[in-house]
Amino acid sequence: MRFLDYRFSDKVLALKPNAIREILKSASDPEVISLSAGNPAPDAFPVQAIREISDRLLREDPIGVLQYGVSEGYTPLRDTLKAYLRQKHGIGSDDDELIIVSGAQQVMDIAAKTFLNEGDVLVCEAPSFVGALNTFRSYNTELVGVPVQPDGMDTDALARVLDQNPRAKMIYTIPNFQNPSGVTMSLAKRQRLYALAKAHGCIIIEDNPYGDLRYAGEDVPAIKSFDTDGIVIYSGSFSKVISPGIRVGYLMANAAALSKMIICKQGQDVHTTMWSQRLCYELMTRYDFEGHLSYLRGLYEKKATLCMELLDTYAVPAGIRYNRIEGGLFIWCDLPETVDMLDFCRRLTERKVCVVPGNAFLTDADLPCRSFRINFSTPTDDELRSGIKAIGALAAEVIQ
Amino acid sequence: MRFLDYRFSDKVLALKPNAIREILKSASDPEVISLSAGNPAPDAFPVQAIREISDRLLREDPIGVLQYGVSEGYTPLRDTLKAYLRQKHGIGSDDDELIIVSGAQQVMDIAAKTFLNEGDVLVCEAPSFVGALNTFRSYNTELVGVPVQPDGMDTDALARVLDQNPRAKMIYTIPNFQNPSGVTMSLAKRQRLYALAKAHGCIIIEDNPYGDLRYAGEDVPAIKSFDTDGIVIYSGSFSKVISPGIRVGYLMANAAALSKMIICKQGQDVHTTMWSQRLCYELMTRYDFEGHLSYLRGLYEKKATLCMELLDTYAVPAGIRYNRIEGGLFIWCDLPETVDMLDFCRRLTERKVCVVPGNAFLTDADLPCRSFRINFSTPTDDELRSGIKAIGALAAEVIQ
Repeated sequence: MRFLDYRFSDKVLALKPNAIREILKSASDPEVISLSAGNPAPDAFPVQAIREISDRLLREDPIGVLQYGVSEGYTPLRDTLKAYLRQKHGIGSDDDELIIVSGAQQVMDIAAKTFLNEGDVLVCEAPSFVGALNTFRSYNTELVGVPVQPDGMDTDALARVLDQNPRAKMIYTIPNFQNPSGVTMSLAKRQRLYALAKAHGCIIIEDNPYGDLRYAGEDVPAIKSFDTDGIVIYSGSFSKVISPGIRVGYLMANAAALSKMIICKQGQDVHTTMWSQRLCYELMTRYDFEGHLSYLRGLYEKKATLCMELLDTYAVPAGIRYNRIEGGLFIWCDLPETVDMLDFCRRLTERKVCVVPGNAFLTDADLPCRSFRINFSTPTDDELRSGIKAIGALAAEVIQ
Repeated sequence: MRFLDYRFSDKVLALKPNAIREILKSASDPEVISLSAGNPAPDAFPVQAIREISDRLLREDPIGVLQYGVSEGYTPLRDTLKAYLRQKHGIGSDDDELIIVSGAQQVMDIAAKTFLNEGDVLVCEAPSFVGALNTFRSYNTELVGVPVQPDGMDTDALARVLDQNPRAKMIYTIPNFQNPSGVTMSLAKRQRLYALAKAHGCIIIEDNPYGDLRYAGEDVPAIKSFDTDGIVIYSGSFSKVISPGIRVGYLMANAAALSKMIICKQGQDVHTTMWSQRLCYELMTRYDFEGHLSYLRGLYEKKATLCMELLDTYAVPAGIRYNRIEGGLFIWCDLPETVDMLDFCRRLTERKVCVVPGNAFLTDADLPCRSFRINFSTPTDDELRSGIKAIGALAAEVIQ
């Protein structure tokens, strides 16, 4: 047997690397202005608190940090999160349980593994988070996209998709500041989505990594908050509010569903890094976590506002349109029909500015797409200024 | 839909929690002497070095520790491990690559995902590590066990199994100080296993978490060291030599096979915790890592020797037999045919001593089994003494 003859499983035959993470590798050239990442701002990390906590933990309870933990996660953190979710988002019934995972990405993996057979259909927003879509693809799932409107997923289209796809078993949604569109789903649509899922026997994955990063407007109730049927898997993350490098997320679901998911989690990595879990617990309980969130909202509001001002000044007059946002880390820009989006992104890269071509977020990257995604959390203000000026200049050249 | 009506995937329908981790939960009663864990000894952790490193990293490069990393792992750690494996174990060709994973458990998961379709056959030692078996089960794989002899897997039986199972695609082995049997596979058997795998087009997973914990005898070459065909996936771990709570393992395989596995890894947790990876790198390069391994070997040799002396004094005269070991953390004990093993373990638990019933390590827990596993790394010397005395006393009562 030679390496070209590997008999890969049907699941992975067609898998390709995450397009964005590949783009990020090429964007690591220090001369390139990258508006393509999804990283928190470097000044978003509570570095001083983390130093203090880590030092104390390794002095007071080194064995607790270094020894094996239980697969469900560090119990005090689980209890803290359950109280937090109930109080802040009104979610979590007596039938629900919560476990700690190694970043929210793991929620997608174990939910897919637990509920989807190969060939089953997963319905998602189009566009949607490419990392999650790739995870679903890795279980040989068929992805069906539903267009996103300014108030969220087109639920009329969702109804048709569910009618047409008897193998639809799961609906994946990012209801707040959706990645990549920046859109928040209205309450009416959340209720309709829930009713449709229930009627078709579908599980909903509600992925909410950005919910705490709302800097304008009013919170909309989580879908999980009206989950009386145990069909919503709620996914939360510390990646955008503490640190992504620590890899901590959490998952709330009906205990019966969770009992299978926890076995899948155990089979993947036994448990989540103890140091990371303990850090999150200490930050949530001994520090002013709400104050930190409020600091983050201020930080990102400033950057989002700057980004939108720059787009209004340089890009919109040249013919680019975008969705205004109230939270999150991304802005979605549309080119006119006359412009070849992939060619536009390529030419932008030649001018040392990187954005993510919108087709990367579709269920099929070969579908037509006129959009690209901008991230404003990672670049400095100066980089944002130069980057968006370059976008505007190129647009002025190519848009007639 | 009510929670009892969940339509779980075929993969997870029959999954049950890892029997050992469930036993460990009941063994958390402080009055119980647990010989059932697989944890490193509390004094095995390089606590002082970890404190120093963590403090320095969080002072000198906090963003590097807290920001997203690449899925392949921290490059300096990958390079260090490649050099280490080549120098120490003579493994790694130009066609091979190495990635960092979140504990060796993740190797089993992504290898199974990459190479096994549902219904494919995975061949393993019987008994074998229950955590890995559960991961393979979670892909709806059929497990076929091959008996373990004092010099490792019965390769004649392996040849028959491969002939009889055309869907066999993978062979899972722990060649050094196998968990749970404690047995090390001879070089001749490693070569035979390799030849058989090659002839049948099977991938080998060589799981080597205990290889650096040899306290007597001579190292046997790794199967990966004669892998000229790119069919061996080598799995290493820091869990037993630095800390399991940090969740760091690594995986070396032919680059073409690895290219699919890395996508599966990315879909599970994006990347492994940065703090943990940086810690391993610093410990391997700025500290006396070989000295630490040598300290660990001394520590475990002392405990293993005590354990075997206690067994010789209290258990063997009462009719229990065991395999002498040269490394690792486990000893495998056999009861005579007249004794009901499960009943023996139950009665031992009533006397506040916990061991792991051997059937937990079989491909089917309902198969007959007269063995149980003892761990000597976690209990104190006093606990070991009381525990093995209790085993001997019970054996004297029930063995006629």
